Amino acid sequence: MHLLLTNIRQLCNVELGTERKSVAKGDSLKKMDCIENAWLLIEDGIIKDFGDMEHAHAVAANDILDVSGRLVLPTWVDSHTHLVFASSREDEFVDRINGLTYEEIARRGGGILNSARKMADIDEHQLYDESLARLHRVIAQGTGAIEIKSGYGLSLEAELKILRVIRRLKEEGPIPVKASFLAAHAYPIEYKENHEGYLKLIINEMLPVIAGEGLADYMDVFCEQGFFSVDETDRLLDAAAKYGLKPKIHANQLHRSGGVQIGVKHNAISVDHLEAMGDEEIEALENSNTIPTLLPGAAFFLGIQYQPARKLIDAGLPVCLATDYNPGSCPSGNVPFLLTLACTQMKMTPDEAIQAVTLNGAAALEMSDKMGTIAVGKKANLIVTRPMPSFSYIPYDFGNNPVEKMILAGQIV
Amino acid sequence: MHLLLTNIRQLCNVELGTERKSVAKGDSLKKMDCIENAWLLIEDGIIKDFGDMEHAHAVAANDILDVSGRLVLPTWVDSHTHLVFASSREDEFVDRINGLTYEEIARRGGGILNSARKMADIDEHQLYDESLARLHRVIAQGTGAIEIKSGYGLSLEAELKILRVIRRLKEEGPIPVKASFLAAHAYPIEYKENHEGYLKLIINEMLPVIAGEGLADYMDVFCEQGFFSVDETDRLLDAAAKYGLKPKIHANQLHRSGGVQIGVKHNAISVDHLEAMGDEEIEALENSNTIPTLLPGAAFFLGIQYQPARKLIDAGLPVCLATDYNPGSCPSGNVPFLLTLACTQMKMTPDEAIQAVTLNGAAALEMSDKMGTIAVGKKANLIVTRPMPSFSYIPYDFGNNPVEKMILAGQIV
Repeated sequence: MHLLLTNIRQLCNVELGTERKSVAKGDSLKKMDCIENAWLLIEDGIIKDFGDMEHAHAVAANDILDVSGRLVLPTWVDSHTHLVFASSREDEFVDRINGLTYEEIARRGGGILNSARKMADIDEHQLYDESLARLHRVIAQGTGAIEIKSGYGLSLEAELKILRVIRRLKEEGPIPVKASFLAAHAYPIEYKENHEGYLKLIINEMLPVIAGEGLADYMDVFCEQGFFSVDETDRLLDAAAKYGLKPKIHANQLHRSGGVQIGVKHNAISVDHLEAMGDEEIEALENSNTIPTLLPGAAFFLGIQYQPARKLIDAGLPVCLATDYNPGSCPSGNVPFLLTLACTQMKMTPDEAIQAVTLNGAAALEMSDKMGTIAVGKKANLIVTRPMPSFSYIPYDFGNNPVEKMILAGQIV
Repeated sequence: MHLLLTNIRQLCNVELGTERKSVAKGDSLKKMDCIENAWLLIEDGIIKDFGDMEHAHAVAANDILDVSGRLVLPTWVDSHTHLVFASSREDEFVDRINGLTYEEIARRGGGILNSARKMADIDEHQLYDESLARLHRVIAQGTGAIEIKSGYGLSLEAELKILRVIRRLKEEGPIPVKASFLAAHAYPIEYKENHEGYLKLIINEMLPVIAGEGLADYMDVFCEQGFFSVDETDRLLDAAAKYGLKPKIHANQLHRSGGVQIGVKHNAISVDHLEAMGDEEIEALENSNTIPTLLPGAAFFLGIQYQPARKLIDAGLPVCLATDYNPGSCPSGNVPFLLTLACTQMKMTPDEAIQAVTLNGAAALEMSDKMGTIAVGKKANLIVTRPMPSFSYIPYDFGNNPVEKMILAGQIV
């Protein structure tokens, strides 16, 4: 099966030559390679060849799609989400506007424990259906691979419920999915004064079952004051390593918690959030393969400070962007809007922002051999935009969906 | 022709009783009236009756639409836009991220004068087609009445071109449109050192023709340091008054420019922008019928300070929200996202934000007798949402379009 796209106004984020980039950083992050007036050939769901129209050669194709005036990009890879949740939390959103503190909202039954209570009650089939609907909604906005975390369960049974739903999305859904195990998201009420008990539950009861069933690709921990300390994170990541689960962790959202350093020590794939960063944290990342993943959607929605994106980019780090889609601090999985936030609030350029959520998103999920750029041999998960002049138009034209068609595994959907 | 909507989960922003509100302010702004589990009857494009399902009585209707699980709201009234423009300006957006100043961008040919140059070149039919496409896009996001300004012409010929396109949108488009004449948007290059000459051109050449053809409903001036001074604004509004054009003006965007006070002096329908506000300006508004219209989309996109919405609301003012849709400082006419901005960045509650862009938007266009609330006798321009729990979900669920169906003049579109 062949599909040929012709008259592409701008084919974005291409890799020429034969050497493949594993991440974009430094000058390569600052300048995204594109071909104006291009063609692209897909064979059996894989990018087979591409080039500019002036030097096109005859190819056999079952289908030809003329996309005059439109851009083609690799799909977004959203490497940090909590998309499988049981209920929205708009009441807390209003409480926060009215000036209630986090503690007051928690007393009213809000926060992660609110999500956990609702997760305990929901039927697994309903959870799957609602999560699949959300997945389709973000796919329509250009997402072509995604990571989803557990962490609203906080008991073996409920964590398993979430992870089984994620597995079903992986098996039956239309895009690649990776799962992170995040029981260490908050201490459940019954373990509030017994951290040791909950750590043992995770290490001795949950991890063996979850690893045994192959339900998680990564281990996640919310390393933060009032949540999981550096020492607790250290123990949890040691335990996960025994089952081959690599870390991707929540670090430095509210404080310089030591999360970055403990992530780097464990050779984490990524450390995510990073609102609170100093020179030490940046230095730790410079001497590592750990990807710094920024989640400005949560900063926007909570009205807190944004991540120091320019500082990290100028330090030569392979900055990644992800949505943090979750019902409490960022009820949106809209990557085009994430790009606008990155450009307007963190002063990333469109070149940087788009690469941060394509190639670097793929790298943060160990998928950069298959996704994240237009390169021969990579999976043909592609965005065909509405007519527009150039990729800078995507973050500029905020509030409108740039996606006209999605191509997933070579199929127009 | 009758259309009956049944099983409405929440019918929002209703007016009970027979007395009609002209604006929402004070306690009435802080609490929006709604009916849970409601029905609504439309007759010949007008709201005929409504109530709760438990007290429903039999009615004859040609069509019945069961909207179980969905909300119904009055459509947004977007009272400040520059929707008729000739070309996007994403290159300037990138220049700004790269740290270029306003002056440097202007030297490269950016800014309002950039839009004016492109306006001079574009064919009127093409301008209409592109503007109509934009209008349909914002309608799909819930807008059911709109104001559109000229101001990218800056010559008699080009201002007329814009205003004729706006008139055609008014006559042929699907929603009510009001036009504002904004030749006083910037000084054209040839009048940079000859303000008097441009004022005379507006007053003696443009106003008679535009008023003569009935092309404008309002007179607008960009009252701001480096643009039009208080004295110049005063002269322009005096001249417009002779033709019966009431003022709606740009005031206090960058500085405490005296714009609010001169607007109040001329009994302006609204003063718009209001980033830079002190106690004097608030006091002037308290003693007036002038509506303060906030445009946080531009503040967001430019990364400047937001308007002091809470201060204005707490002073009892009928705060209005509008998008400022324009190619330079806010290339988005997306009202649902405007609501999210108002709630997350200016700490308006969903009750306040929705009323600010429905009833108060209508008031800012002198349409509150026909639009802006659910009331018997008002025009049946209605939003039917996707399934959702309550109106607070609309600003909470940012990046997704809440609109499932639009009803315009009683017709499902």
